[in-house]
Amino acid sequence: MIQQLIITLPSFKRGYHLVTDLIERQLPPLPDTGLLNILVQHTSAAISLNENADPSVRHDFETFMNKLVPENDPSLTHTQEGSDDMPAHLKSSLIGASVNIPITHHQLNLGTWQGIYLCEFRNSGGRRKLVVTIMS
Amino acid sequence: MIQQLIITLPSFKRGYHLVTDLIERQLPPLPDTGLLNILVQHTSAAISLNENADPSVRHDFETFMNKLVPENDPSLTHTQEGSDDMPAHLKSSLIGASVNIPITHHQLNLGTWQGIYLCEFRNSGGRRKLVVTIMS
Amino acid sequence: MIQQLIITLPSFKRGYHLVTDLIERQLPPLPDTGLLNILVQHTSAAISLNENADPSVRHDFETFMNKLVPENDPSLTHTQEGSDDMPAHLKSSLIGASVNIPITHHQLNLGTWQGIYLCEFRNSGGRRKLVVTIMS
Repeated sequence: MIQQLIITLPSFKRGYHLVTDLIERQLPPLPDTGLLNILVQHTSAAISLNENADPSVRHDFETFMNKLVPENDPSLTHTQEGSDDMPAHLKSSLIGASVNIPITHHQLNLGTWQGIYLCEFRNSGGRRKLVVTIMS
Repeated sequence: MIQQLIITLPSFKRGYHLVTDLIERQLPPLPDTGLLNILVQHTSAAISLNENADPSVRHDFETFMNKLVPENDPSLTHTQEGSDDMPAHLKSSLIGASVNIPITHHQLNLGTWQGIYLCEFRNSGGRRKLVVTIMS
Repeated sequence: MIQQLIITLPSFKRGYHLVTDLIERQLPPLPDTGLLNILVQHTSAAISLNENADPSVRHDFETFMNKLVPENDPSLTHTQEGSDDMPAHLKSSLIGASVNIPITHHQLNLGTWQGIYLCEFRNSGGRRKLVVTIMS
C-alpha cells in the first residue's frame, strides 16, 4: 500500500535545520511496518539524516560545506543566478535530494541521535516542497 | 506490487548527462502512485537529481568534482586501472549509486527544475546498466 | 509485503569495510522481486556501494576522506566528543546513511563489482545497528 503527501516547509535561512518534528506532525497515522521516502523537489537544497542534539553540529556543517564548495570560484561558469547558486547545486548532489526512513511500530525508526536535516544552500531559498511517500 | 526492468544506457563521455527523457521513454506505464528506484550497477559512475535546464551546470559539475577529487594524487595506491579509476570510485560514493523518485498520477514527480543525471567518471566507461524497480 | 529486521554488526576499526556477505548471511529468504533498504542508525558512520574486489580501494577511501574532511580544523566548534567526531558527522552526510538494493530472482541484484561498505568514521565506533527493510 502506498500513501503520498506534499509537505511545504516554512522558509529557512541558509544553513542546516532540524525538521524531524515539523515533518512528523504533518504525517498521517503510519503503518505498523514500512518505509518512508522524502524527496526535496529542488536542486539547491538537500535532505539528510544527522545529529539531532547539539546545534553546533549544524553550525559546523554550514562552515565546512562553504569551505568545501566555495563561492566565486573563477572556474565555475554558471554564475548568472548569484554566487550562491552553482555551489548550491553542487552541495545538493553531494548531500542528496532524498532520504528513506524505516517505519517500525507506527513510528519513524531513526537512531537515538538521528534527525532529519533540511539543508538550505541558497541565501533566500524560499519555501521548499517535499514529496513524502509511505510504503507498507 | 513490484515491477523491475533493466535499462542499458548508450556510452557517454566523461561528464554529467541529463538522461530523464532517455529513461522515461523506456519505462512501462507507471502506476497512479508509487516510488521508482534506479540503481546504476557500477562503481565508477553515479546517478543524481539536479538542474535540468542549463548545460553550464553540468559543465561546472565536471570542473568542480575533478578539483575535489584530483587524479594522480600520490597518496592514492589503487592506480593500476588508470588515473581516472580511483577518483571515479570516490566520486561514485560521494554522489551515490541510486535515486528514488516518487510516482504521482502515473508520472515521475520531480520538481520543475529536477532531472536525472548519469554521472560518468571514467574516460571510457562504456554502456552503463541501470536496474529500475517500480513499487506501487 | 514488508519485512523488517535488525542486524547488529561486529565492531569495526575506523575505515571502509566490505560487509556484503555478513549482511546476506543474516537475511531471511528474499522475495522473487523487490527492494531492500538498509539504514545505519548512527550519525558517525555511513553505508555505501562500491568496489568489492581490491582492498586498496577501501584503503584509499580512508586516505582521501581524511584529507577531504580534516580533523582539528580550527573553524569547527563541535569538538567536545573528540577530534574524530565532527568530521565523522560530516562524512556521514556526504556518503549517506542508507542504501537501496534491488532484489531479483531472490537475490540482491548488485553489479559484478559492487559490494556493501560499512564506513566507520570513529576511532572506536563500537557495534553499529542496521535496520533492514525488504519490500516486495
